[in-house]
Order: sequence, then structure tokens, then C-alpha cells
Amino acid sequence: MNAYIEDIARHEGQHVVIHGWLHNRRSSGKIHFLSVRDGTGFIQAIVSKATVGDEKFKQADHLSQETAIIVHGNVRADSRAPGGFELDVQDFEIVSGSTDYPITPKEHGVDFLLDRRHLWIRSERQHAILRVRHEVITAVRDFFNDRGFILADTPIFTPAACEGTTTLFPVDYFEDQKVFLTQSGQLYAEANAMALGRVYNFGPVFRAEKSKTRRHLTEFWMVEPEMAYATLDDVMNLAEGLVVAVVSRVLEKRRRELKVLERDTSRLEAVQPPFPRISYDEAVKILQDKGQPFEWGGDLGGTDETILSQHFDRPVAIHRYPAVVKPFYMEPDPLRPELALCVDVLAPEGIGEIIGGSQRLASYDVLLQRLKDHNLPQEAFEWYLDLRRFGSVPHAGFGMGIERVVGWICGLEHVREATPFPRMMYRVTP
Amino acid sequence: MNAYIEDIARHEGQHVVIHGWLHNRRSSGKIHFLSVRDGTGFIQAIVSKATVGDEKFKQADHLSQETAIIVHGNVRADSRAPGGFELDVQDFEIVSGSTDYPITPKEHGVDFLLDRRHLWIRSERQHAILRVRHEVITAVRDFFNDRGFILADTPIFTPAACEGTTTLFPVDYFEDQKVFLTQSGQLYAEANAMALGRVYNFGPVFRAEKSKTRRHLTEFWMVEPEMAYATLDDVMNLAEGLVVAVVSRVLEKRRRELKVLERDTSRLEAVQPPFPRISYDEAVKILQDKGQPFEWGGDLGGTDETILSQHFDRPVAIHRYPAVVKPFYMEPDPLRPELALCVDVLAPEGIGEIIGGSQRLASYDVLLQRLKDHNLPQEAFEWYLDLRRFGSVPHAGFGMGIERVVGWICGLEHVREATPFPRMMYRVTP
Repeated sequence: MNAYIEDIARHEGQHVVIHGWLHNRRSSGKIHFLSVRDGTGFIQAIVSKATVGDEKFKQADHLSQETAIIVHGNVRADSRAPGGFELDVQDFEIVSGSTDYPITPKEHGVDFLLDRRHLWIRSERQHAILRVRHEVITAVRDFFNDRGFILADTPIFTPAACEGTTTLFPVDYFEDQKVFLTQSGQLYAEANAMALGRVYNFGPVFRAEKSKTRRHLTEFWMVEPEMAYATLDDVMNLAEGLVVAVVSRVLEKRRRELKVLERDTSRLEAVQPPFPRISYDEAVKILQDKGQPFEWGGDLGGTDETILSQHFDRPVAIHRYPAVVKPFYMEPDPLRPELALCVDVLAPEGIGEIIGGSQRLASYDVLLQRLKDHNLPQEAFEWYLDLRRFGSVPHAGFGMGIERVVGWICGLEHVREATPFPRMMYRVTP
Repeated sequence: MNAYIEDIARHEGQHVVIHGWLHNRRSSGKIHFLSVRDGTGFIQAIVSKATVGDEKFKQADHLSQETAIIVHGNVRADSRAPGGFELDVQDFEIVSGSTDYPITPKEHGVDFLLDRRHLWIRSERQHAILRVRHEVITAVRDFFNDRGFILADTPIFTPAACEGTTTLFPVDYFEDQKVFLTQSGQLYAEANAMALGRVYNFGPVFRAEKSKTRRHLTEFWMVEPEMAYATLDDVMNLAEGLVVAVVSRVLEKRRRELKVLERDTSRLEAVQPPFPRISYDEAVKILQDKGQPFEWGGDLGGTDETILSQHFDRPVAIHRYPAVVKPFYMEPDPLRPELALCVDVLAPEGIGEIIGGSQRLASYDVLLQRLKDHNLPQEAFEWYLDLRRFGSVPHAGFGMGIERVVGWICGLEHVREATPFPRMMYRVTP
């Protein structure tokens, strides 16, 4: 019967048919060891001359990497096999060949691999990363759905900017009109929260940042929950719950993939509540104590985040930054109005920010003043002001970047491996 | 204790606190009936002078629509109430006011409402639609996840066109480079399927069509499964299973919303397998028998689809269209090479196409010839040709547009109500 490699344990002792590709091959005289992949996993298939006959045996000795192959064989438990099982091949059929497959088991440079990303994703390591990504996204959605949040998609085409205008991608719309690609669905999510209570949007966002760091993509996926009748504390609790749920789920369901990635899972097992919650003031003190030249009042840079995130064994929430380094829509701290009721969550191991959130401005008058202070055109924000004209309530939310979370959980050097087809400043192909 | 209206049945006889907004209000002398919404539902709250006292009672008589209000009250079952329960108000607090809320219970024109979409979504009808949308999307994801498909996101920024170039939105990328917004993730999904076996991508896609029909948005969400080692029959089976699963889930979980929408649920209950599967040839005959002037060889237009979809009581799969009216990447029918191994699924009740899919070209040589025939630049498709160079296998998939499915299930006149913030040719605000 047809079977998938990921289900192979259920078929012990049975005759199965695997539809896949040849990943690797080695021989020892009378036996060929074929490493076969089918997209769900990898298995070693043993071809012996005694079983398949002379002709097939000779054919198996000439199979090239990524040949499409259908293998018929018996499933046998073998404790030495990586997945615990091997296949004793009875027969096989070649579906199509593969000549000079460019990605060989030797080392390749990253540009070479990125140019061949459509093939690179066939490797065991990229397999593992993409399966972890799938699990992260599923865990995120389950987390919000189980808590009664409604998925309310926010638009990609936007007439106005959410966080500054210099990092927007313009699109040629109809009749010479320019629109922009969204950087964040937050403003719309606020409207959705006023309608539906607790919502989230989860889609691609776009940043035209001229950054070429290991943390930046021009196109990435972000989940943004937003809650009516909620405060900064609610955001910190929700963010903590989400991160714990996601990491736990990957540990539960994707052990095999983490092993392929040689991830130190003890670092992930340490991700338990409660996360340390420190004020920006305290963060500044930690940086200064560590000799980092940092003055109170500035935004945390990449290096600062790295230092802080290495200081803790689990994610750390840093709250109440100076309002001047944060966007216009944040509620001021009533006790110290120069601070914003915001929070960034930094992942450990030097990863840095994975979540940014805040309580949003509820006051019409204060919001109007902020728009003026930031030289934002009031007309474009009339609809956003409406949310304060008609039944304004305290509300709060955050955004979490998926590729950074996947990169952290997988232990990647660069977020470019955390998505099937990464887009960067100098990379829009394949 | 704090409670959500959707959970109110669990709180019968209890004292609860609802955080919400005033949706509507009427009075009968000594009693005010407040319709309160909290995003999860609507409930009638009874304010009597005897309970809340003179001052509060007078205040309740002046509450305006969309006032933010926290209501404390006792939950009482009442079979006459729409949700089966009412609230006997003990006390309430005004969080913030609402003056001259523009969307009143009277009728408004659709442009007026679309200009105020951020407020319109607070209405009971829009609430219901967006909750059905949430359920549809959740059902789609569960369907694929439960069957072992891996979510593999495809890029939004693409260098080449998937289906023609006239309906693409160009984006100003870095250094005067032009890229395009994806119309479909399919070509990338094929690469993902060769790596991961069975995959799906699910995200926004963009079509710069100058169409102003009730079926078109410039930005909409599409789910696209793709399977290695699969044929047209697999696609028809999968599509049928998906549609049945989605409709069943909405019937199971969102009865209340369908009632608000006054949807004839018997039409949805008829959506059972097997769906009729007819060839394009048969479809042409049905059209001609009905007096529609249609010649064999052309593509089905909107009117043709409407007629065909009214002919059946459930979705109908139409397969094997002439290859010339379909994109370049479809596998020809080996028995009649002038036909493509493709299928469109039309929803009933005159809705028309909700799914389009096909078996993809597996042969390198035929694909190369097709690219030439369609005047497509080979260089841009080298990576796509690689999928046929290295272990090509029969593979197949489809795309399903979410807004059309939501519109069908909700019984909407126009897909613009099927998403929180619709984008159309003349509509990119709010």
C-alpha cells in the first residue's frame, strides 16, 4: 500500500510503496543503500542483488541525486536507522531522471544556494526548518482561535503609513494613483477590535528598509492580536502565553526536526513563564553596567538588544520606553507621561526583538495632537480618529514577526532560511 | 465576573460584567431596553428604575449609539430573546461617549457604508459575515493540516508573471527595480511540493483587473494546495473534500450567524459528495440546450458560469477545457491533447467559479515549447524548468478564492462584504 515516510512506524512488517526522490546513495559491493525522501521524511532503502535481480541492481548503481523514484519494499525496524526503520527493497521504478543536480553533499556558498532556493529546500536541513515554520504558524493560530480571537485580515494596499513613510513600498494602482504596501495591520486591527472585541490579523507585511542585517527581510509574516478593553498588562500576559505555547508546541511535535538542526533543546525548554519584565530604565542600567555606552532616552539598537537578550535565559519583556522613540499611537504612562505604555519582547541567545506591542491612545484630543506633532495628515487619519469619536475604550495589542521566531527556535544565523523564498534588498529571485 | 456574550449560556443565574458598546436602545416608560454588543455577540440588557435608581435610569435614557459601556447584571434565560438570554442590569458605567454616530438603523447607500467601513463592521450583519469568514479560513487550514499538508508560504514579490502580464501591480523596489505583486503562488508551490510532498500556501494575491463585477476584488485571499505524485482526479477529490468540509464546519459552528444573515441553510446542507463532474464538452451542451449562444472552444464567461451553477443543487466540477483558453502550465489530456487536464469548481446558486486547478506539465520539453508559444522569457522561468530537469513527477493542485466562498456561504450580493477592508478598482480607503 502507498505510505508516507513520516507514518512508517505504523507500517512495520508491511509491504509499502513510497513515492519520492533519491536523496543520496552509497554502495558496499552486494548492497546499495539508497536514501529516499518523499517530502514527509527520509528513509534508508536497502537494495540487494539477491532480491531485485541483476538488472535492477545494476540500474540502482547508476541512480543520480534527485531521481524521481517509486520504491516497493518491506518496512523493518532497525535501531541504528535515524528514523528507527529501514526499507528492504523488493522493486523500484524510475519516474524521471536528474542529471547534474547542482546541490551536492559538499559545502556551497549561501549565494549559490539562494540562487537555487527552489532546489535548496529539498535538503534535510531546509525541510526541517520549513516544518518548524509550519508548526509555529499552526501553534499561533490555534492559540488565538482557542481563546476566542477572531481572525480579521487587514488590507495590504494602504493609502497611509503606519510607522513613518521612508520605508514604504509604493505600488502603481489604477489611473496613476499610488498606494503603499502595509507595514503593519495595526491601525485596521484597532478598528476590527472595536467591532469584534478580540481579533488578530496574520499576513505578510513589507518594509523597504535598507538593512542588510541577519534580522531583516523586505517581506515577512506578522501576527498581530488586538484587544478592546485591554491594557499594557494584558498585552504582556498574552505575549508571554503565546511565546510559551509556540515553543512548547514545537518541542512537542517537531523533536525530529530540531535534532536535524542540531538545536540545543535545553535552551528552548527553559522558555517557561513567568518571563522577566523589566522597565526601559532597568534595561538601560543593565547595559551601562555591562559597559555598553548607552544614554537614557535613545532607542535600543541591534547590539543593545543582543546584549540584553543574552542576559536572560528566557525571553525578557522590556516595557515603558521613552515616548519619543516610539510611534505616535501609543498611550502615555499616566504616572510618567514621557514614557509610552509599550513593551518589546526580546528572545534569548542574542536574538533580540520578536514582539513589539503597546496600549493604544484612547483619547481623541491626545491623538489629534500627536498627529500634528508628527506632521501626519489629519485627513488620512479621520477614520482612525473615528475610533476615538465613537465609543473609545482602552485597547492594546502587539505584533510578532514569524521569521524571527522561526529563526530563534531553529537556531539560525540569518532569518533568510526561515521562509521558503526570502526577499531581501538584493534578492527577489527565484 | 467578566463574561463574553457568546458564553452567556454558561452564566445563567450569575452576576456578570459585560464590556461593550450600546448598539441600540428603546424605552417603555419604566424600563429601558439596551441592546449591548461586546464583539462576541449581542444581548438585551433591561434597565429598570427600581433597580438602578433615578439618576442612572435617567442617564440610560440619554445613551447614544456606540457609547462604550460596562454593564453589570444578572443573566436570565428568556425564550423570547434572540440569544435565549437577557441581562437584568444592576449597574452600568459609561467608558466614553459617542456623538452623532453616522450609521443609524435606517438604510444607507453602499458607498456611504464603504466610506465608513471601519464603523460598518460593528453592525450585526457584518459581524456575522466576518465570523463566518474566520470559520471558513480555520476550516480550510484544519482540513489541510489534518491531512499532513505543510503550509509553505509563497512570496508576494515576484520577478515574473504567473498568468499574463496585463493584470499585474508593479512595485517600486530598491534602486529603480520593478517587481510585481503575486497573482498566484502556484509556480512556487510546485517547487515546495517537490521538496515537501504535499503543501499549501494561503495568503493575499493581487489582480489589477479592470473589472467592476460583484465577483472581483483587487486584493483577495487564496488557498493553493499542491501535491507531488498527483493527477487531475486527485485534485477533483481534494477540492470536493475541501468544499464539503468548509460548508459543514460553518453549518456546525456558525448557525447563529447564518440566521442573522437570513441564509437559506437548506441550500448549504445540500452540499454533499459526490459533486457532479462534467466535461467541458458536456457543459457546452448544457449551455446550448438552455439557449445560451456558446461555441465550443471559448472560455466560460460570467454569465455562462451563472447558468451552469444554477443548473445543479451543489457545486459542479467542470474538467478538461480547451488548452488554448487556459494558462501555459497545464498538462495536456493524453487522450485528446487539445484539452487541458484542468478543473473549475462552480458554486451553486449562480455564484460561479470558486476553485480552479489542474495537473501541471511534467515534461521539460513540452514546458519549454509552451513558454516559447506564449512568448514568455525562458530566463525568468529557468528555476521553474529546473523542477522538470531534476526528478520531475506528475503533480497537481488548485486555488480557492476565500472571498467568493464566504460570499457564497453567506449569500452575499457582492464579495466586497466578505473581507474587513475590501480593495477594488476605485476603493483603497479607509
